[in-house]
Amino acid sequence: MAIKGVLLDLSGVLYVGENALPGAVSALESLKHSGMPVRFITNTTRTPRSGILLKLERMGLKIPVEALYTAPAAVRDVLVESGLRPWLLVHPNLEEEFQGFDCNAPNAVVIGDAGESFDYSHLNQAFRLLMGGAEFIAMGNNRYFQEPDGLSLDIGPFVSALEYASGRQAVVLGKPARAFFHKAVASMGLEPGEVMMVGDDLLADVVGAMEAGLRATLVKTGKYRSGDEVSLKGSQAWIENDIVTVVDRLVEGMN
Amino acid sequence: MAIKGVLLDLSGVLYVGENALPGAVSALESLKHSGMPVRFITNTTRTPRSGILLKLERMGLKIPVEALYTAPAAVRDVLVESGLRPWLLVHPNLEEEFQGFDCNAPNAVVIGDAGESFDYSHLNQAFRLLMGGAEFIAMGNNRYFQEPDGLSLDIGPFVSALEYASGRQAVVLGKPARAFFHKAVASMGLEPGEVMMVGDDLLADVVGAMEAGLRATLVKTGKYRSGDEVSLKGSQAWIENDIVTVVDRLVEGMN
Repeated sequence: MAIKGVLLDLSGVLYVGENALPGAVSALESLKHSGMPVRFITNTTRTPRSGILLKLERMGLKIPVEALYTAPAAVRDVLVESGLRPWLLVHPNLEEEFQGFDCNAPNAVVIGDAGESFDYSHLNQAFRLLMGGAEFIAMGNNRYFQEPDGLSLDIGPFVSALEYASGRQAVVLGKPARAFFHKAVASMGLEPGEVMMVGDDLLADVVGAMEAGLRATLVKTGKYRSGDEVSLKGSQAWIENDIVTVVDRLVEGMN
Repeated sequence: MAIKGVLLDLSGVLYVGENALPGAVSALESLKHSGMPVRFITNTTRTPRSGILLKLERMGLKIPVEALYTAPAAVRDVLVESGLRPWLLVHPNLEEEFQGFDCNAPNAVVIGDAGESFDYSHLNQAFRLLMGGAEFIAMGNNRYFQEPDGLSLDIGPFVSALEYASGRQAVVLGKPARAFFHKAVASMGLEPGEVMMVGDDLLADVVGAMEAGLRATLVKTGKYRSGDEVSLKGSQAWIENDIVTVVDRLVEGMN
């Protein structure tokens, strides 16, 4: 099946830290000129889209907000489509993403990486809403992340706690959840098998995308570690040095 | 195999709320006079043993502290036996149970129903200790409990959160954990198959005890609900009206 659309991970594919990767700015331009639809897909749940776009722009990477697919944005879409009234347990930075929703008599628990807001009182409120039948939507299920002074608990453990207590299963909208990939694919009017996901995270990006029926490319930048590609032997995944060689191959395939 | 010892649950078997159940005081006396060893076994992790004994005494139920088997006491024993230095995430009422331990450079995370102390900072400290190789000991895995204003999160969800984050499995010392029943059984110098567990909780008391190799009796007092005994059909469990008929049957069986 021909590749008709692309999903790009951000950190580790287009930039690392505060700098665009070599050739990334022009590779992105080439891809735009090719006419192939592109979506940018990230699990970040502590920064609103406006903050992400600003950071990208400072590095010369200009993308329209409509093309940026974040877990919070996916959640927002689900809330709108289903007419849900959210009760938010998210990082304060993220509240601007959820302005305009009716939050009275909430019927959906929405959980992000809330950091210090993960306390007994908030978790108990979430639990009671779930026991009362509220929908359960999570922006990921990551276990932990690296902080300067050590590893810290990410969203996943708290999702697990509420699942255990309530006997309910959260709908996870973030990589590697199928629903998250499918959401971004559908926004291009394409089928999963027509779309290439490009990422530096073996499990969340590459394996996750393939399990969701997409094509996938592992780039050897960002968090890629030598040997990551071994487990992809026998799969249809592409292994490429960086975003430059990925775009070359994609554009070549269109001709 | 003859029954040579008894484990009694407290709430719902000997008393409900602040009152002894009808006949419970004299049934307990009969059991003592029979010479059969008895242990009292409870999951309460918000009250120290001293508080439980005082409450029982006010209702005319006198038991020696050595016969009272609580999850915190079981944890204390394990810590002593293994020479562990605990890091405690427990309810403030319970701290007196753990006086005298060396808590420097802790190598065991001990988690009880800590209530409001379940916050991000404490959970993250527990997580980091677990990732550093500390033992992981929990005083139960109950999902929730009833409070005047609704259901509230018990210890289990927080155990689940830390298990998910760390990839480690907690040793649970509380009903229905096998190790907890076996601990109380061993304190009488008996084998599990020689001991009868009497309780009002179908799963934690009756099914749990049988899965740990004990005999078990379901009493129709306390949290018993009509129909609870249906799932015990075909098992060797006794179904009795209350502690009075249980003790009659046990004492009769000794002659």
